[in-house]
Amino acid sequence: MTATQSRPPLALALSRTAEAVATYIDGAIARSGAPGERLAGAMRHATLAGGKRLRPFLVVESAALFGISAARAMPAAAALECIHCYSLVHDDLPAMDNDDLRRGRPTVHCAYDEATAILAGDALLTLAFEILAGAETDADPAVRLALVASLARAAGVAGMIGGQMLDLAAEGRFAEGKPLDLPAPAIIELQAMKTGALLRQACEAGALLGRASPAERASLDRYARAVGRAFQIADDLLDVEGEASLVGKAVGKDAAAGKATLVGTLGIDGARAELARLTGEAEAALAGFGSAATLLVEAAYFVADRRN
Amino acid sequence: MTATQSRPPLALALSRTAEAVATYIDGAIARSGAPGERLAGAMRHATLAGGKRLRPFLVVESAALFGISAARAMPAAAALECIHCYSLVHDDLPAMDNDDLRRGRPTVHCAYDEATAILAGDALLTLAFEILAGAETDADPAVRLALVASLARAAGVAGMIGGQMLDLAAEGRFAEGKPLDLPAPAIIELQAMKTGALLRQACEAGALLGRASPAERASLDRYARAVGRAFQIADDLLDVEGEASLVGKAVGKDAAAGKATLVGTLGIDGARAELARLTGEAEAALAGFGSAATLLVEAAYFVADRRN
Repeated sequence: MTATQSRPPLALALSRTAEAVATYIDGAIARSGAPGERLAGAMRHATLAGGKRLRPFLVVESAALFGISAARAMPAAAALECIHCYSLVHDDLPAMDNDDLRRGRPTVHCAYDEATAILAGDALLTLAFEILAGAETDADPAVRLALVASLARAAGVAGMIGGQMLDLAAEGRFAEGKPLDLPAPAIIELQAMKTGALLRQACEAGALLGRASPAERASLDRYARAVGRAFQIADDLLDVEGEASLVGKAVGKDAAAGKATLVGTLGIDGARAELARLTGEAEAALAGFGSAATLLVEAAYFVADRRN
Repeated sequence: MTATQSRPPLALALSRTAEAVATYIDGAIARSGAPGERLAGAMRHATLAGGKRLRPFLVVESAALFGISAARAMPAAAALECIHCYSLVHDDLPAMDNDDLRRGRPTVHCAYDEATAILAGDALLTLAFEILAGAETDADPAVRLALVASLARAAGVAGMIGGQMLDLAAEGRFAEGKPLDLPAPAIIELQAMKTGALLRQACEAGALLGRASPAERASLDRYARAVGRAFQIADDLLDVEGEASLVGKAVGKDAAAGKATLVGTLGIDGARAELARLTGEAEAALAGFGSAATLLVEAAYFVADRRN
């Protein structure tokens, strides 16, 4: 039995993508022409600290359904990860969530300073679009442009940024300190924007690279919506049940902030039942792809069951 | 004599572009799908407060050299202005330049709060690329993609963001408080990145929309480099000689920060002589376009002579 065979396929695929995307981002930062060491150092701190790299994995595996190699999918995967990482840098700032710890390491504004963190975040956001516009991303300019439009939409005010704004509002940040008591549909909508939009973009990027048919795109999108909701519920459960040492960041923050979550609304058992329903939904969405989608289906269960 | 004839052509052209770009950005924010009123309000505060709109004007007038209408150039002009405005919002933050006043009004983090200002800046940066990717920007996806690549490069670490990082370093922000004593070439390089990159992108965008020949692009770029340097020297002179009420923001900040500027290096008379040389350079660069370039040439003199 070789070392490869002794590891479960999903873990191996995740670690391969994680390694490849880190290498790609490292190279893109090196090629970007940042002056001095400090800015590039902060960008590397923000992007090369590990993490599951779930979004790049979803780009790579969605593209693989259409015979696109991991290497060809890597620029689009790296661009999306740059967006995810910039959002973490800005969300961690004192004026936002004020987090000192991220993946068990100091956040960028703690390791450097606030001004550097703001600029490094801006730089990664900008770099994402520079990467997508590059010829390496796809031979067809129209496909690269579709990726730009898709990522800008998902990362913008109708997606991730809008979701973060709603999240701050839900914590009562703009209303004299009183958290909002949101009903479940509003929480789902907020999370679909804040977390779900980038996960959906990952699968959309794979579909664009793979010239998927409208039906195939719709199936992938149904899968991605279910995974996105499962991801957030699992995150909320970790905040309630997890240990900071394992999760790699502060836990119990939602309750401390008086923040409305689905776990708070459904209860822990209700949230677990919803997770089971969502993984079934994700699996059903990809039935038409047969065994080619095995890793994506396993990833949905991994997201729902994750412990960090 | 009509009202139109009684105004100088440059002032009229500038005000027409300013009005059109504000209308376009206002519409783009309305269409962007921002949740609630607060985020869109902060984006409008950042973009619709007036200003000379020099960058959109340069896009429009560069494109006009090739017969492109102002209406057709407006999306590219608006995208660039969104980048410029986001950079002002982030630069004004307490962790950066800590400015309370911008164009005579409270800065975004003063009118709203820091979290909203960070997110509104991120949103405008993202919106710029969403606008460029849209079909309104140009019928040819390859041209839209070239605009994305051009703007990402100009706004990124090799351009504006890198320049701002160098500027903070020059103020001694990362070296225990001691401002760097930069030689003139280093100041010129810093300013070429921080201010010059977006002004050059404006002319490059016009050239891309106009399918300019390589020689025409090079001429416009020579013009834009000269205007960019003139712009920064005029800015430094205003910081030394201007009145806050007229300039619309705090003055004397460079000296207070012990910051190296070309005015400090060349003296006021030396800086004025360099301004005269640069306007001559800008005019010479566009000689090949004949009278079609009159407004652009006038704009170079306007930039050098401006009082606010």
